[in-house]
Amino acid sequence: MKIVDIIEKKKKGLTLTEEEIKFFIDGIMDNSIADYQASALLMAIYFKGMTLDETTWLTKYMVESGEILDLSDISKDIVDKHSTGGVGDKITLMFLPLMAAAGIHTAKLSGRGLGHTGGTIDKLESIPNFKTDLSIDEFKAKVKELNTAIASQTLSLAPADGKLYALRDVTSTVDIIPLIASSVVSKKIASGANHIVLDVKCGSGAFIKTPEEAEKLSTVMVEVGKRLNRNICAVISSMDQPLGRAIGNSVEIQEVIEFLKGNMEVDLKEITYTLCQTAFEKAGKFSSKEEAYKYLDELIESGKALEKFREIVKSQNGDDSIIEDYTKLPQASIKYEVKATKDGFVKNIDALKIAKACKNLGAGRDKKSDPIDYSAGIYLTQKYAEPVCEGETIAVLYTNKNEAIKDAEKLVLEAFEITDDEQPPKSLIYKIIH
Amino acid sequence: MKIVDIIEKKKKGLTLTEEEIKFFIDGIMDNSIADYQASALLMAIYFKGMTLDETTWLTKYMVESGEILDLSDISKDIVDKHSTGGVGDKITLMFLPLMAAAGIHTAKLSGRGLGHTGGTIDKLESIPNFKTDLSIDEFKAKVKELNTAIASQTLSLAPADGKLYALRDVTSTVDIIPLIASSVVSKKIASGANHIVLDVKCGSGAFIKTPEEAEKLSTVMVEVGKRLNRNICAVISSMDQPLGRAIGNSVEIQEVIEFLKGNMEVDLKEITYTLCQTAFEKAGKFSSKEEAYKYLDELIESGKALEKFREIVKSQNGDDSIIEDYTKLPQASIKYEVKATKDGFVKNIDALKIAKACKNLGAGRDKKSDPIDYSAGIYLTQKYAEPVCEGETIAVLYTNKNEAIKDAEKLVLEAFEITDDEQPPKSLIYKIIH
Repeated sequence: MKIVDIIEKKKKGLTLTEEEIKFFIDGIMDNSIADYQASALLMAIYFKGMTLDETTWLTKYMVESGEILDLSDISKDIVDKHSTGGVGDKITLMFLPLMAAAGIHTAKLSGRGLGHTGGTIDKLESIPNFKTDLSIDEFKAKVKELNTAIASQTLSLAPADGKLYALRDVTSTVDIIPLIASSVVSKKIASGANHIVLDVKCGSGAFIKTPEEAEKLSTVMVEVGKRLNRNICAVISSMDQPLGRAIGNSVEIQEVIEFLKGNMEVDLKEITYTLCQTAFEKAGKFSSKEEAYKYLDELIESGKALEKFREIVKSQNGDDSIIEDYTKLPQASIKYEVKATKDGFVKNIDALKIAKACKNLGAGRDKKSDPIDYSAGIYLTQKYAEPVCEGETIAVLYTNKNEAIKDAEKLVLEAFEITDDEQPPKSLIYKIIH
Repeated sequence: MKIVDIIEKKKKGLTLTEEEIKFFIDGIMDNSIADYQASALLMAIYFKGMTLDETTWLTKYMVESGEILDLSDISKDIVDKHSTGGVGDKITLMFLPLMAAAGIHTAKLSGRGLGHTGGTIDKLESIPNFKTDLSIDEFKAKVKELNTAIASQTLSLAPADGKLYALRDVTSTVDIIPLIASSVVSKKIASGANHIVLDVKCGSGAFIKTPEEAEKLSTVMVEVGKRLNRNICAVISSMDQPLGRAIGNSVEIQEVIEFLKGNMEVDLKEITYTLCQTAFEKAGKFSSKEEAYKYLDELIESGKALEKFREIVKSQNGDDSIIEDYTKLPQASIKYEVKATKDGFVKNIDALKIAKACKNLGAGRDKKSDPIDYSAGIYLTQKYAEPVCEGETIAVLYTNKNEAIKDAEKLVLEAFEITDDEQPPKSLIYKIIH
């Protein structure tokens, strides 16, 4: 078998065999296939696509290229959640305590963020002393004890995906549905859960821009996951404006705690409850949405979800006094209020522009080794459909970089679309793919 | 400017600017663009093509990536000829003496062959002591003195093309018309001639299989050459059966000498005369085809063309006694006659199969460093439309490898298509693109 023949075959639009896809992944791993051959194949896949069979084989051999976490000794039902990423996306941090409080096991391996704001691990690390680099044994012990744990991904899960992703990033071959699907699903399968809930975002603040694309990707991910014996579904939602009001790291932790205390932003509640209810279904809990939502409300109102959050923080060495005293979280030296320049109603807040402003303020990074300012971020005092008056504060910028404020303010003002007309309420959820 | 943005642009089917194409070639040369990025771009070009503007810029910057031979002190009219390659293609060796005898300057830099048989340089090196590694000064002095010279390409002409070609070969991106066109035309432009005659072959023995593809490629090459101020044309001809009767190295030299002595195979005459007449037109010589052909006949009949061949051989240190005594050329120890298995007429001789048989016998090579057996080859005693009887010799195999004969004979028998019907005469020339 020769890689040049495999490239030629895909170039002509033919379907690769399981053996050919295994040969490709093996060659990536043992370096017998050169990067310039892999990138030519990836570009051919951009133009000619992959069948579900091909995508399933690709996913399977990416999983098998590395370690596979075995959680079967904890429970027969382990739920994992994955978000394709958005601005202000702190859903995991509400999802996990709610699921754990409901008695469902979740085991979450997460990454540090690249780009405009930190990832879930970065957000957690803004809690003083919070420890995310757990050994596998520590991680599993905590899941057994508290029903959940969250750790930074130190294992070599689906390393072929890592190698391919590095190549895709520099060869303009990122936006290819079968490759995105196999990347996401392979990592989730290697993480050991048998139930997988995918949170697929689309809109200006997500890398997928339209509901149609999101549906295509979700359908492939769900089908591939099923073929590899996972109980999997995808919730597609809008990422046109940021999720919640807080974007950054410690400001998002604060918003999470408020949520668990019962002060729930409407959009955060809609997404979190939908994902929880979908996970309940997977785990065979509750027969109706109403029942599930009522139960979730009880977990919040009784303080059980917040208590579970405190247990997680304490269990992972974090300072749980932040729950009562937010000043113990990293604080920015500068708070700057952005004022509306006209009267009206918020029609949209461009998530990508807010994210860029956030990065300017210090909340993001370009390279994994770059430091991150946990205290930097933005709080949106006004959101979709809310009325604003000229001169009224619409957002607060948090930063330690005085020089960054001007550009960030400009981006925030551009992000806000203010109109004379009242705006109708709208749902964020486009579709759920089972 | 970033290469990943250029790849993205081409992937989306947009036209690259001159600056972007220069950036690409510069990056290939100084290694600031990685091979895996170049190959991704090449694959995107396979799917999205290049405009004539883009192809022209690509050609221009490939020319400028290396040395450019200056022949302007020899004559204002220098002709160069290039063949896209075929089986038994010895046309250059008849074209050059004819042109030189006609008083037209040609300066031919040529390569060694990769594949089934040797290249023009290999064929010439089967003449004892023939020297092809001329310095530029030697080469130019000979062109001044004899009107022609032929040297192996030691200069670094269009090195960006060399780098790209090496990559294309291993990433299934060879068959891309704008890349083939810029590869051919850039080398010819860097070789210093202002009149360029392209001999474009199509059929089973050529890398271009159909007249339609050949016309597409020729049109691009001619247009790009014109835009870069060259007087250029392309002659498209059939390469379904081998050219002439001899395929190999020293056997082809022998056939060339026979041609110049007046024993011209019909197909060799048709192609050679057409190319010469086209070159005459470019150089402003003769107003009609009839006049040109009459003049070419005179050059053969008078012995002037043969005399020019002798001058070239002597001038480049070769043993010109081979012209009278073919046994002074390398001789194979084994001559094996392949016999027809049925009566009939030759309908076709598959050029590719004959070429493969030739390589088995020792006439070709895989790597530039592999040795070549100059004496190995095949002589076709029967060609298109000629009658054959069962048991009659249709081809003679020349080799020093006894063990290779069986497979070669099998290939030759498969190559011959023998039919009951008489075959009509046919022209090899499909079209001339000016």
